[in-house]
Amino acid sequence: MSTMSEQSGTDLDQFRPVLDRLGGALEELAGYVDPDHGGWTRRVLSEPYTASRSWVRDAMRDAGLTVHVDEAGNTIGVLPGRRGSGPALATGSHTDTVANGGRFDGVAGVVGALEVVHRLRETDTRLDSDLMVIDFLGEEPNEFGVSCIGSRAIAGTVSRDYLDHERDDGLSLGSALQQRGMDPSTVMDMAWAPGRISAFVELHIEQGPVLERVGTQIGVVTAIAGIERVIATFLGRADHAGTAAMADRKDALVAAAEAVLAVEQIGCAGEQATGAAVSTVGRLEVEPGALNVVPSLARLWTELRSPDPGWLGTARRDVVEQFKLIAEHRRLELDLDWLNDQDPVPTAPSMQDVIAVTADHLGYSWRAMPSGAGHDSAHIAAMAPTGMIFVPSRDGRSHCPEEWTDLADLGRGVHALAATLVRLDRRGSA
Amino acid sequence: MSTMSEQSGTDLDQFRPVLDRLGGALEELAGYVDPDHGGWTRRVLSEPYTASRSWVRDAMRDAGLTVHVDEAGNTIGVLPGRRGSGPALATGSHTDTVANGGRFDGVAGVVGALEVVHRLRETDTRLDSDLMVIDFLGEEPNEFGVSCIGSRAIAGTVSRDYLDHERDDGLSLGSALQQRGMDPSTVMDMAWAPGRISAFVELHIEQGPVLERVGTQIGVVTAIAGIERVIATFLGRADHAGTAAMADRKDALVAAAEAVLAVEQIGCAGEQATGAAVSTVGRLEVEPGALNVVPSLARLWTELRSPDPGWLGTARRDVVEQFKLIAEHRRLELDLDWLNDQDPVPTAPSMQDVIAVTADHLGYSWRAMPSGAGHDSAHIAAMAPTGMIFVPSRDGRSHCPEEWTDLADLGRGVHALAATLVRLDRRGSA
Repeated sequence: MSTMSEQSGTDLDQFRPVLDRLGGALEELAGYVDPDHGGWTRRVLSEPYTASRSWVRDAMRDAGLTVHVDEAGNTIGVLPGRRGSGPALATGSHTDTVANGGRFDGVAGVVGALEVVHRLRETDTRLDSDLMVIDFLGEEPNEFGVSCIGSRAIAGTVSRDYLDHERDDGLSLGSALQQRGMDPSTVMDMAWAPGRISAFVELHIEQGPVLERVGTQIGVVTAIAGIERVIATFLGRADHAGTAAMADRKDALVAAAEAVLAVEQIGCAGEQATGAAVSTVGRLEVEPGALNVVPSLARLWTELRSPDPGWLGTARRDVVEQFKLIAEHRRLELDLDWLNDQDPVPTAPSMQDVIAVTADHLGYSWRAMPSGAGHDSAHIAAMAPTGMIFVPSRDGRSHCPEEWTDLADLGRGVHALAATLVRLDRRGSA
Repeated sequence: MSTMSEQSGTDLDQFRPVLDRLGGALEELAGYVDPDHGGWTRRVLSEPYTASRSWVRDAMRDAGLTVHVDEAGNTIGVLPGRRGSGPALATGSHTDTVANGGRFDGVAGVVGALEVVHRLRETDTRLDSDLMVIDFLGEEPNEFGVSCIGSRAIAGTVSRDYLDHERDDGLSLGSALQQRGMDPSTVMDMAWAPGRISAFVELHIEQGPVLERVGTQIGVVTAIAGIERVIATFLGRADHAGTAAMADRKDALVAAAEAVLAVEQIGCAGEQATGAAVSTVGRLEVEPGALNVVPSLARLWTELRSPDPGWLGTARRDVVEQFKLIAEHRRLELDLDWLNDQDPVPTAPSMQDVIAVTADHLGYSWRAMPSGAGHDSAHIAAMAPTGMIFVPSRDGRSHCPEEWTDLADLGRGVHALAATLVRLDRRGSA
């Protein structure tokens, strides 16, 4: 039996990754891209994504894992433990990307987990628990307007509503999954039994500027921000842009412009008050969109994010109130459509502790921080104690081709992931 | 020889149009529509437009005109005058529409002119001058981003630059004309000789609310507003909308929102100061346009219109200054691309007089007013004394399916057009 005293820095040092192999895996996966998009694009259910996942299966087998693909399309590799039964330890992330995305978001946590397995085998370290490495299906927001397909399925939160989301051509997510041989009713009904895993740890790039700016090596995630999303449609009146007097107009775009600035103001105030709140209008559509016609319709997609559920609720009310005031003042119709929200998810304090203590043992600087981005971890957290390890992102850039994490930085994250899993295993059997 | 004293209301009363025939012609032309668009859509060079123009040729022949199509695609019907040579009188408008447009814009001036010809023949009124009825090619802003193809060609202001304008798929206007059998070099070089026409009168719907609001039957156009158009592109930085702190962002859309409101403010101030100025952002594009990505690019199409060249110049400088301030303040790049501007065009005072005196003789109320919309008249005015007759638009609506002018209102305009042409002819030969 292991004891805590045996988990010295020296013992854990042996799990340091082989950076050449780690970098090579990143490079190979980056070869699967959609030629119709810029950057590194592998959107869920696309050809390059499908092709890349067979690379993932092969890479899992090469690392010595037993691989299967579950009913929701999650690719799962298992390294059998000594104990032969009982809850498994789990790690992983995703390999799909946003359009025009980068090489690290999600991928870091999958190739990082594979490198952990390599190091465990190369050091003849046999864990007591089974270790599961998961490549979750479709974590990024997709053409159907939803995200985290695979981790939601595992958490048992895929509903009929969720599967009914349609992309622009009218195809629903459920039908798209069916076209790829999956059974939507099974996907809705495949939740893992409690106790199937004892803990989940996800390694991920920060996607923000904090770690780089303060010169810290490891982020210990305290909470994953909740998200409120609303589609607001201002309906005015199309008029000839040369003949309709300014005072007579019902211009939907000027209302939307006021709304965009109101949203920015709400996020700035929230950031100042709570330290971690953001608000964004990422998309705006204008109709009819002709040079010489006063816009009759403007539709904006607003997103609020914060790890603080109190602020999220207040900000949501503020958005509704301000949008209504704008519409009233300009004599426009307003339509508000709130999308599937996601509550803030705190990570398990016990997991924060073990990651932090491990980082200390390895001699890596770390800081506690919330995640502004959503993650598969937010869904898995409902089933098992969950923690996340962040590594720095250059200039805080993400979801763009410039997304970058130095291999040395990523290596420290992989090292911390390996050591954390070993500590969790030893603690579990202590 | 006629004298002014013969042009009594009684004499001119005989040119009152046959409303059933006028309404029938409107109805028939309204049958040519593009099934892919709403409203009444006949965009230049489209199938339904081409089909409708053969209806126009037939209708011209039925009215007794000699018809030809010129090198720029203008359909021209001539009613030979007694004199047999010398400058012609001309009238006409256009039969193309904007997408999702109405039944009256342009059409009123073409079917109105045909009704004038019918009445001249039915009353055995032989003019001294030839009378030309012109259906100008493509007056509305088109997919190539330009307008008034036919009237510009007649005025000799079609340049290589103009023909090089491309639509979204990269096809240039010049190539599109060539595909339809026209020769771009001829189109550039077909300007009418000075003196080919002695005067031009265009009947058109007001497209604004003034005549209806003040209860006046005829508008005597004093000037056609000039137009300044600029495409402004704000270039920021795409960032993850969950992880990029508000203060760190370079959000192109919030800059564009400020710009939209600045444009509105400039137009409102101009309207208050000069009585006739408008400003519009009719189109706004956002990239990448994803829910969870801070917009990196926002492109807005701004239009300024006024009959006052002084205000237009000032407003243009204001737009540049304010857009630059916004970009600077938000640390964004700004790109400004001014499109082919159009100077304000005053109509000929002599033409305003003859239309106003004619309206008085016919017992129709009239008021002098500028046109906020552009017209073929703005180009023909460079070649010959030009005047415009407006009739009321219900609720001031135009460029939309709700565009409407009561037949009785249109009839008064046609009557005024007929009487004005007869007066011009008699004056010319007095």
